[in-house]
Amino acid sequence: MFSPLIKELIESLRCLPGVGPRSAQKMALYLLERDHQGADRLANALREALDKVGRCSSCRTLTEETECQLCQDPDRDAKSLCIVETPADVVAIESAGSFKGRYFVLLGHLSPIDGIGPEELGLDRLEILVQHNQVEEAIIATNSTVEGEATCHYIAEKLKTLNINVSRIAHGVPMGGELEYVDGNTLALALEGRKKL
Amino acid sequence: MFSPLIKELIESLRCLPGVGPRSAQKMALYLLERDHQGADRLANALREALDKVGRCSSCRTLTEETECQLCQDPDRDAKSLCIVETPADVVAIESAGSFKGRYFVLLGHLSPIDGIGPEELGLDRLEILVQHNQVEEAIIATNSTVEGEATCHYIAEKLKTLNINVSRIAHGVPMGGELEYVDGNTLALALEGRKKL
Ligand SMILES: [Zn+2]
Ligand SMILES: [Zn+2]
Repeated sequence: MFSPLIKELIESLRCLPGVGPRSAQKMALYLLERDHQGADRLANALREALDKVGRCSSCRTLTEETECQLCQDPDRDAKSLCIVETPADVVAIESAGSFKGRYFVLLGHLSPIDGIGPEELGLDRLEILVQHNQVEEAIIATNSTVEGEATCHYIAEKLKTLNINVSRIAHGVPMGGELEYVDGNTLALALEGRKKL
Repeated sequence: MFSPLIKELIESLRCLPGVGPRSAQKMALYLLERDHQGADRLANALREALDKVGRCSSCRTLTEETECQLCQDPDRDAKSLCIVETPADVVAIESAGSFKGRYFVLLGHLSPIDGIGPEELGLDRLEILVQHNQVEEAIIATNSTVEGEATCHYIAEKLKTLNINVSRIAHGVPMGGELEYVDGNTLALALEGRKKL
């Protein structure tokens, strides 16, 4: 019923998380019927982000800059490093407001089935960063899921050989929960109650 | 927390219907972290659709062709014309499978507040089409909302002066409901039970 280009637009909208065939059709028609300006802005934003966004040379978060804003901030304590799975987790912890150190973003967790090992998570880089910045404490704030716990365990063993304090964010976070959905107060408490590994 | 290009991507995703700040952030990070291929396809599809999709010269539905597939189909009865609000309504009626005529797509309904009058809905073109195709029956299948009913009434008065049968899709469709969400059987019945205006 739809012309090839409209079909293709509907299909391609389905790459978005949580968007099924019905929402994709609704979105495509909405953009074409009623919001050309928004669609144009979105097409440009996608293209630009795809072309330019890479990873921070220091913490590996997503950014189009060589080094992200947080890593460039001289007021952040480089001796305290919080290790998280995704950029969304950085946002969640920052909004809690209690952590003044820096981050290292794994962009994932260990998942042998998906071919994601220590290399893919940049753990070599993490060791170099810890030594280079003379990090004194690493707080591991991976998700409290099975994969997040396994990743935490692996990283903890590795970092302990560097003779630094390694701690785990406290389990104020509900088990099985994903960090980015936890409210700021709980996160602040969880950071406060971290325990040495 | 996010770099300018990522912020812009998150903002621009909010033009999609049903996408709030949280989903937009999730979508942007998902695309950048995990689905560059999908994001690339989406950026291309959006750009192409924006550049090329216009309106069918005959029925005014959205298409990149001069005349849409349905209007080009010689097996469709040009003497029976179904008038709907949106391309999604065409899809809904086609999936019911009982209508063998052609369509006219208003791409909206009369809405003086939004500056949508008869001209914006292409009603001049509709009259020309009716005369050119020697249409014998026009079935008005605008939504059974207040605006849809008002639009139906206006069109009916206009078409009756052309001396053709004008009918309204039967109200098997629940009042206040939008056509595109009605199941095929109900739509088939509603078409069957149309009443002359
Ligand atoms: Zn950084
Ligand atoms: Zn057409």
